Amino acid sequence: MINQLILKIRQTNAPVCIGLDPMLSYVPAHIQKKSFDEFGETLEGAADAIWQFNKEIIDKTYDLIPAVKPQIAMYEQFGVEGLKVFQRTVEYCRSKGLVVIGDIKRGDIGSTSAAYAAGHLGKVTVGSKVYCGFQEDFATINPYFGIDGVQPFIDVCKEEKKGLFILVKTSNPSSGEFQDRLIDGRPLYELVGEKVHEWGGQHMGNSYSYIGAVVGATYPQMSKTLRKLMPKTYFLVPGYGAQGGSAEDLRHCFHPDGLGAIVNSSRGIIAAYKQEAYSRIGAQNFGDASRAAVIDMINDINRVL
Amino acid sequence: MINQLILKIRQTNAPVCIGLDPMLSYVPAHIQKKSFDEFGETLEGAADAIWQFNKEIIDKTYDLIPAVKPQIAMYEQFGVEGLKVFQRTVEYCRSKGLVVIGDIKRGDIGSTSAAYAAGHLGKVTVGSKVYCGFQEDFATINPYFGIDGVQPFIDVCKEEKKGLFILVKTSNPSSGEFQDRLIDGRPLYELVGEKVHEWGGQHMGNSYSYIGAVVGATYPQMSKTLRKLMPKTYFLVPGYGAQGGSAEDLRHCFHPDGLGAIVNSSRGIIAAYKQEAYSRIGAQNFGDASRAAVIDMINDINRVL
Repeated sequence: MINQLILKIRQTNAPVCIGLDPMLSYVPAHIQKKSFDEFGETLEGAADAIWQFNKEIIDKTYDLIPAVKPQIAMYEQFGVEGLKVFQRTVEYCRSKGLVVIGDIKRGDIGSTSAAYAAGHLGKVTVGSKVYCGFQEDFATINPYFGIDGVQPFIDVCKEEKKGLFILVKTSNPSSGEFQDRLIDGRPLYELVGEKVHEWGGQHMGNSYSYIGAVVGATYPQMSKTLRKLMPKTYFLVPGYGAQGGSAEDLRHCFHPDGLGAIVNSSRGIIAAYKQEAYSRIGAQNFGDASRAAVIDMINDINRVL
Repeated sequence: MINQLILKIRQTNAPVCIGLDPMLSYVPAHIQKKSFDEFGETLEGAADAIWQFNKEIIDKTYDLIPAVKPQIAMYEQFGVEGLKVFQRTVEYCRSKGLVVIGDIKRGDIGSTSAAYAAGHLGKVTVGSKVYCGFQEDFATINPYFGIDGVQPFIDVCKEEKKGLFILVKTSNPSSGEFQDRLIDGRPLYELVGEKVHEWGGQHMGNSYSYIGAVVGATYPQMSKTLRKLMPKTYFLVPGYGAQGGSAEDLRHCFHPDGLGAIVNSSRGIIAAYKQEAYSRIGAQNFGDASRAAVIDMINDINRVL
């Protein structure tokens, strides 16, 4: 799957993915109204509004980009109805040829991680039949449990030709509270990075490992160090745009050939119609605003590569 | 909610919770057959089998115990159908007066943690209405993001009178890979423990904080240190039984008055009928086997307190 992701990045010349992380407040009033008219002001109505919102954005951008990254929390907040739309969104994106990175940040003891891995990247057996629960191509993973919380995900990826992005250095303001603490003179995130590099070395695609790393755009000096430490690891880079990371900040996540990283933007793309730069496009045409924002983002990033 | 949990622990004289972590392979053949006959060998059929299994175990044990801890991964592996049963199980346990600890181990950047917190412990707004997605009383949380990944959960707990258990030292074999690394001469898990203690100090119930900690039963010397470091923090202790922790091992998690910890057992209880000790009870009466195993577990733990 890492090979396919890189192929799609080359084809689109766009090392970016859209974070499909819809808050209900991002959904334009006319879409909400239509869904509420049909399903009431219910969890089902909210879920439908989010689905209509997602679908329009996907339809207006899928030809420009290699991948999407739906954040499952934004669906999970609406309970089962929200998760139905997560599943529907994953399926729809795959049908459009997009690589789907499930931003799930799961991680637990071995047997539990195995269940998450089966549900999101693999299969479950029911009697004599085999099914997929959700069906992402990549998943994001939390490393706090060490290798036996990660290994079940690796096993499923190997079997199913899928991939992972393991949290190394996250983009949020307090990420340093534990991640930056020094161990033998080096920050924890470097040790995690080294481990991810080591695990990934045994699970290579053509030129990069299918075990990638999450490296926030908001800490450019740290990503520079991590890029050197993990030469064969693809980086998933959150934090561009709304979280404060600039194109200049994330240059270090890439190798000189322009590969090595995929940059995510969520709010900056999906709620683009709310920004002054795109407000003339109007809430009615929010999908066009997202398309314009994607094009601007691609140009902004390619400018520094 | 921490006050209510402690009250229930006192009333039942049972500092234990049952981990409702059903694998389909734990569900006796006659239950599977009945569900498959009705719904086919489908995800819906698997989910129904798990629901019937859970319900019988809850019905046979709820009067003995203060709390249950459903592990969401075991439901999530069956996709949306599985998550419907997670929701149904949470609701049913609450209707039986049990405290429900959602073992979800979520954690992300602030806005994303806020969505998880709303979905599992709080409420979401849809138009002029307010709903609960899932509805646990406590949730387990991963601390890797630092305080801004935790704060949204704390905020919701304060508002809704709910509680957290934050991962400090996990029970799995490789938990030391990062958690035991020394920072200024002290292991990372102690620093996390200190932070949890600090955060918890601002959010107290009557005698304990509603921000608790996950401390594995499998590392008794470490739990001894953590008990001293976090005197007002309730411990959720996994790893008893099937994972290898003995009653003697977890004595240090408690204060001399017998409070301070709640011990979880999953497989050891829910699949008790498969153990030699309870096999005479038979798979047909698996709920009775679970009840017998709960009674033995309570006695085993109370023996060392």
